[in-house]
Amino acid sequence: MSEGQNERLNTQLVLKSVPDGLTEITDFETREVEIPSLENGQVLVESHFVGVDAALRLIVRDSDEFLFRVKPGDIVHGTVAGKVIDSKDEHVKVGDYVLIGNGIQQYTICNGSEVEIVDVSQAPLGAWLGGFGVSGLTAYFSIFSECKPQPGQTVLINGAAGAVGSIAGQLCKLAGARVIGLTSSKRKCDWLVNELGYDIAINYNESDWFEKLESSAPDRLDIIFDNTGGQLLDQSLKLIGMKGIVLLCGSTSQYSEEQMSGPSNYIWLGTMRARMQGFVIFDYEEEYPQARARMSEWIKNGSLKLPLHEVDGEIADFPRVFRGLYEGENLGKMLLKLK
Amino acid sequence: MSEGQNERLNTQLVLKSVPDGLTEITDFETREVEIPSLENGQVLVESHFVGVDAALRLIVRDSDEFLFRVKPGDIVHGTVAGKVIDSKDEHVKVGDYVLIGNGIQQYTICNGSEVEIVDVSQAPLGAWLGGFGVSGLTAYFSIFSECKPQPGQTVLINGAAGAVGSIAGQLCKLAGARVIGLTSSKRKCDWLVNELGYDIAINYNESDWFEKLESSAPDRLDIIFDNTGGQLLDQSLKLIGMKGIVLLCGSTSQYSEEQMSGPSNYIWLGTMRARMQGFVIFDYEEEYPQARARMSEWIKNGSLKLPLHEVDGEIADFPRVFRGLYEGENLGKMLLKLK
Repeated sequence: MSEGQNERLNTQLVLKSVPDGLTEITDFETREVEIPSLENGQVLVESHFVGVDAALRLIVRDSDEFLFRVKPGDIVHGTVAGKVIDSKDEHVKVGDYVLIGNGIQQYTICNGSEVEIVDVSQAPLGAWLGGFGVSGLTAYFSIFSECKPQPGQTVLINGAAGAVGSIAGQLCKLAGARVIGLTSSKRKCDWLVNELGYDIAINYNESDWFEKLESSAPDRLDIIFDNTGGQLLDQSLKLIGMKGIVLLCGSTSQYSEEQMSGPSNYIWLGTMRARMQGFVIFDYEEEYPQARARMSEWIKNGSLKLPLHEVDGEIADFPRVFRGLYEGENLGKMLLKLK
Repeated sequence: MSEGQNERLNTQLVLKSVPDGLTEITDFETREVEIPSLENGQVLVESHFVGVDAALRLIVRDSDEFLFRVKPGDIVHGTVAGKVIDSKDEHVKVGDYVLIGNGIQQYTICNGSEVEIVDVSQAPLGAWLGGFGVSGLTAYFSIFSECKPQPGQTVLINGAAGAVGSIAGQLCKLAGARVIGLTSSKRKCDWLVNELGYDIAINYNESDWFEKLESSAPDRLDIIFDNTGGQLLDQSLKLIGMKGIVLLCGSTSQYSEEQMSGPSNYIWLGTMRARMQGFVIFDYEEEYPQARARMSEWIKNGSLKLPLHEVDGEIADFPRVFRGLYEGENLGKMLLKLK
């Protein structure tokens, strides 16, 4: 492999222009670059899956406010799961399955220390970008270490069918809570209730969604787990319960907006002695193995599903798949599965 | 007194029309009513001071979302401090100084159990509507029981010269924190620094206020104590520090707005693992005497001032004084002092 690697080319996804509103396919382009020989300590990874993350929209904005800003001409930030096909690092073997976060490309050359070796006997490779990866760990720690739902409490998940929401709702059920999901279609509502065990799912594209939510939560909401921001967060804040918790996990509805808007009903936090709080998954890094061990048990006994929404394609298909994420196509974590 | 009370009339303040934007004097009117004879258990209170509270604007809105809604024709909600001039309740004596929250009027007839007898040797009568009353207790418990500032931390007070802010900043100084105040004029800035001991005060009506704030808080803000909402809250959220606390005490900038706006920079709570939280003073009711005892000590040793902004007038002058509150006339708690 070492001898032949110069002969093949690496396809990278590059930002062409700063998007305005929802990303267009033409905001991106691919480029082919040669793969140099490995230096000592380096490894070569072949990508099998690319994670499709809503937060990417934030870092291609024309703003320096966010970490890892991607500017036109830069490789698009992202994490891939793949296989090591060459290695000059004694700790990483050819054949190892790894995660690497050096951008969206067919091959990655990096230091061996930069990859995270994963155990595909614990969960399939794609799941390490989803329910067994940052999305699932985000759900795990935000639910069990921050929100701490109790039996009998009512939890609302905004963006319930997404990568994090689909896990978070199941974890709340495991904790004995009553779980209501807000999502974008009837198909997703049925899936949440029938496949993932949500108690109630409401389609927020129906005009009476708030009335339905209100009548589904007569004792108000103990926890609002918010992945969306915007109107869903704003309206649901009116129903926050006494000493409730609003966990801010994401604000996908706002990532494409020129001017983000804040929740005008935040004053309900005062009346209800509630709190709205942030959360950063990397603070829990040392506890990841323990979380994965517990989740692995639940997967084996059938009480937790790690839904993956795999779309076949090439690196050049990423912009189309990413747009699909914003159009609400996915049930669970969206992945580009490379041919 | 009992014999003569039917001869005098009681002037009450009544809402005439639902205000649009800032309240106009013509949104209110007064009415004269007869004072009936006392029944057993009742007392008659003569008002000396009327508390001028920003939150009144909320309860005269055309909305049932807030407690104690005042509709056109209703007496305007408010708390007065006064003296008992007649009593048929054995627990309340003629001559007692009391607080009573039955609306803005010259005389109040109520059950003796409804008045709160105050000790004017602890603090002057007017202060019981300000720093020694709900405003001061709000500052006390939100600072010491919720925010808990530590020596060396930096605290921002939005609306620093108001009834609560003027006390909150002093309490943070007592706790050893560095205190920055945002207020509406140079006069108030000078007062905050020279009279109340704020470290820095910034006039938010100057165009470069945010740059000044940013350079005054190079290590970001550990606590944002917010009385204003709106732009001050939204912009200052960009500077919230790691594990910071945003204490929502009031949203005066929004009370007159047709459509309240929320803080679009709430997503900084996520990045900084911070939290924005509500607070309700009445949860601490059992601890009021202890808080007042501590504050009384600080007043005596000169480390706490209870600033009162007294405006002389009659019940009919209340609308003008209330408008002055929204125009930023007051240094500390605004009171209407009845002639």
